[in-house]
Amino acid sequence: MHTKTIASIASGMGGGIGVIRISGDDAMTIAGKIFRKRSQIDLSSECEKEDVQSDDKFFEKTDTHTIHYGFIVDEGKVVDEVMVLVMKKPNSYTREDVIEIDSHGGPFIVKKILETVLKNGAALAEPGEFTKRAFFNGRIDLAQAEAVMKLISSENNYALDSALSQLEGNLSKYIEDIRQDILYDMGYIEAALDDPEHYDLGKFRFELRDKLERDKDKLNELVEHFDDGRMKSEGINTVIVGKPNAGKSSLMNLLLDEERAIVTNVAGTTRDILEERVKLGDVILNLVDTAGIHETDDVVENIGVNKAIEYADKCDFIIYVVDSSEKLDDADFQIIDILQQKKGVILMNKSDLNPVTTVNDIQKRLDWECITFSNETKQGMKELEDYVNNSFLDGDISFNDQVHLTGIRHKEAVMAAIESIDAVLQAIDDEMPEDFFTIDMMDAYKGLGLINGETASEDLVNKIFKEFCMGK
Amino acid sequence: MHTKTIASIASGMGGGIGVIRISGDDAMTIAGKIFRKRSQIDLSSECEKEDVQSDDKFFEKTDTHTIHYGFIVDEGKVVDEVMVLVMKKPNSYTREDVIEIDSHGGPFIVKKILETVLKNGAALAEPGEFTKRAFFNGRIDLAQAEAVMKLISSENNYALDSALSQLEGNLSKYIEDIRQDILYDMGYIEAALDDPEHYDLGKFRFELRDKLERDKDKLNELVEHFDDGRMKSEGINTVIVGKPNAGKSSLMNLLLDEERAIVTNVAGTTRDILEERVKLGDVILNLVDTAGIHETDDVVENIGVNKAIEYADKCDFIIYVVDSSEKLDDADFQIIDILQQKKGVILMNKSDLNPVTTVNDIQKRLDWECITFSNETKQGMKELEDYVNNSFLDGDISFNDQVHLTGIRHKEAVMAAIESIDAVLQAIDDEMPEDFFTIDMMDAYKGLGLINGETASEDLVNKIFKEFCMGK
Repeated sequence: MHTKTIASIASGMGGGIGVIRISGDDAMTIAGKIFRKRSQIDLSSECEKEDVQSDDKFFEKTDTHTIHYGFIVDEGKVVDEVMVLVMKKPNSYTREDVIEIDSHGGPFIVKKILETVLKNGAALAEPGEFTKRAFFNGRIDLAQAEAVMKLISSENNYALDSALSQLEGNLSKYIEDIRQDILYDMGYIEAALDDPEHYDLGKFRFELRDKLERDKDKLNELVEHFDDGRMKSEGINTVIVGKPNAGKSSLMNLLLDEERAIVTNVAGTTRDILEERVKLGDVILNLVDTAGIHETDDVVENIGVNKAIEYADKCDFIIYVVDSSEKLDDADFQIIDILQQKKGVILMNKSDLNPVTTVNDIQKRLDWECITFSNETKQGMKELEDYVNNSFLDGDISFNDQVHLTGIRHKEAVMAAIESIDAVLQAIDDEMPEDFFTIDMMDAYKGLGLINGETASEDLVNKIFKEFCMGK
Repeated sequence: MHTKTIASIASGMGGGIGVIRISGDDAMTIAGKIFRKRSQIDLSSECEKEDVQSDDKFFEKTDTHTIHYGFIVDEGKVVDEVMVLVMKKPNSYTREDVIEIDSHGGPFIVKKILETVLKNGAALAEPGEFTKRAFFNGRIDLAQAEAVMKLISSENNYALDSALSQLEGNLSKYIEDIRQDILYDMGYIEAALDDPEHYDLGKFRFELRDKLERDKDKLNELVEHFDDGRMKSEGINTVIVGKPNAGKSSLMNLLLDEERAIVTNVAGTTRDILEERVKLGDVILNLVDTAGIHETDDVVENIGVNKAIEYADKCDFIIYVVDSSEKLDDADFQIIDILQQKKGVILMNKSDLNPVTTVNDIQKRLDWECITFSNETKQGMKELEDYVNNSFLDGDISFNDQVHLTGIRHKEAVMAAIESIDAVLQAIDDEMPEDFFTIDMMDAYKGLGLINGETASEDLVNKIFKEFCMGK
């Protein structure tokens, strides 16, 4: 079957190199049509020389994984001076013939080269279509494909490591091992029911119970670490609370300063940003409801009590700013009441002034870490950074044999599989006959197959790739 | 001499491919230190296998212009899955050993790879430093180097073509031919003064006069086409004038609609944007003082007379919007008075209503092209586009043997050279002795050398490259 050839701009705009990617059966021919060597160009007129014929077979004849210097021409006129990269199937990103054109960059040129490529027979690639082809051509599975976008949108080491691990197939392998266990046991049951003389189902249900318990434990472990992983990779939902004039707004500005605010407008990521994102060390804090902090008109809001009530349960982490140059008052006591049993840190702010409230005064009411802090002198910034990094990251961020779920889609599939396994366990306990087990085992098997894409519908696949950025 | 090795991110942020460029004597060694093949990586732990030694010589041993699939590691840990491009000196952008690392993109990963490269011995490249090295290593001259940024920031075919022509050395050659003429004649004069027996200066001054006149014509031609070229490549400074409610603001919105507004925030370009830029066909209009149009409160401004007075002389082009559903009145007559002798077009707006003012009514007062127009139905948009394209672009945008100045710096150098040549011509007419000529001839020779960089000071060179974008 002849594969439609697709093309797209693959690099971000604004750099000194702009990359156009082409993939498909005609990639080499299309590139051959529009590529000319220096000797074929009349440089004084910026046109190809009169007797030049395009050599459609040029790239078909070259070795794979080679780089070629020359010019892109459109109807005989030079569009840009380029390097052309040749990667022949199956050793390419898509497992198809791939050409990458490295141009001088600049939005106008890059678009013009893409137009020239399209004019010569390629179709414009949809977002994610290159990776989708890598998936359909069997180079990677669905979880690995998803890891590509995780990788691109990663903002710290944890996110990068977990995306790389997933990209290299560790999650897929973990899930697939469990699926194969279940498949084997289903097969055993069915074989035994068909041929009871040669298969013994006598003690099997006890063996099966043990095996399913082990599978369930493995799946539970993934779910248990999911929220932890989400916080580490996508950021810790954090709220700053405190009385008016305790220094919430200045703290906010201090955090946003020093280039800690990180840009998240990576094309294709779908995180809704209702918050400011700052990076402290390798930890990302999603500071929620920061609008309330900036607007100092709203007195009720500024008391901080309402905010504490609203967010104490929803947030992962609370920064409670105390004005240590004043006595604690009723507003503080109200806030402290709400914060009990939550996770957070106390900043004893305004350490540059005379301290009136001490660490002891507050810690006897709220058993959180206290950091002596000053928005003015930046005292305590380092301690705050260390505290959040020590609290949220394992000292050693290492993925040795660890596997992490990185998306809510995966978590849902795993939880559904756990439910199906529970149903089998219940059936075993209820001493139901073996043929009752296989329905739920099949559900678990199929449900887990959604993760690596074995059982994913076309709709699901399309939905996943739609979130990708162009050129990937 | 050992060249310091530099590195930088070379592609724009936000795409599916992020490129890190390394250039210098250690480029191959540094890449060898941080690159691992798939077989050297334990994919389950995302670390290199235990017994792996970095092969610093790996890329030194490979062929030039080849592509290598593998992983970048930082202290044994995988940072990303990459393609490494090898381009050995002298066949590279800088004429030095060059490595390009094509990563999965994503700001965090790309920065992390750059950090890994820097940690292993490269220095962070300054903006334009790669191109500066291409200049110092003699691959391109200064005008060609400047063309690289012109190319990146080009926004239409004219700008692209003139930048490409300059990049391929056509301007440099044109200027250098004139310089060599002048140098030869200076040499002749000095030889003749030293050795009058063998050199005849008898008729020489008349020959010299002819030759300098021809050089001057060539230089004048460049200056004459400069403004034309600037308009074609950087945009036509345009003002919209007309009475209140004639439809200026709606026209503005119509022009900004349909994706005609073009983005100009290419890193490294220094155009101050005080205007909205829209593209009609291949012509860019810089709509000046558009703030005045959006603010409808300022009555005086909205009469449009003041604006006509202010901009009629400064602008390249005026769009005069007339409400054809009303009679012309005093405000129109005032505007028309100011517009006499200027270049522009009349839009007979509101063609969807009953026409009261006809083309004839207005053309007997102002001899401009009239286009029947409607902001509502978009009648006339195509005609307006055709009109500006026909007026400002030569039907055939071809650079056959034509050379254009693309920067004010070049224009100034050429004008100074013309002045020096004029001084020689004056000296000839004044029958001064020949040795008086050479001082001004040397000035012209040196002045023109600023363009290709032959005589450029280090300060000038640094100033030019400072305007470049990172990674170029």
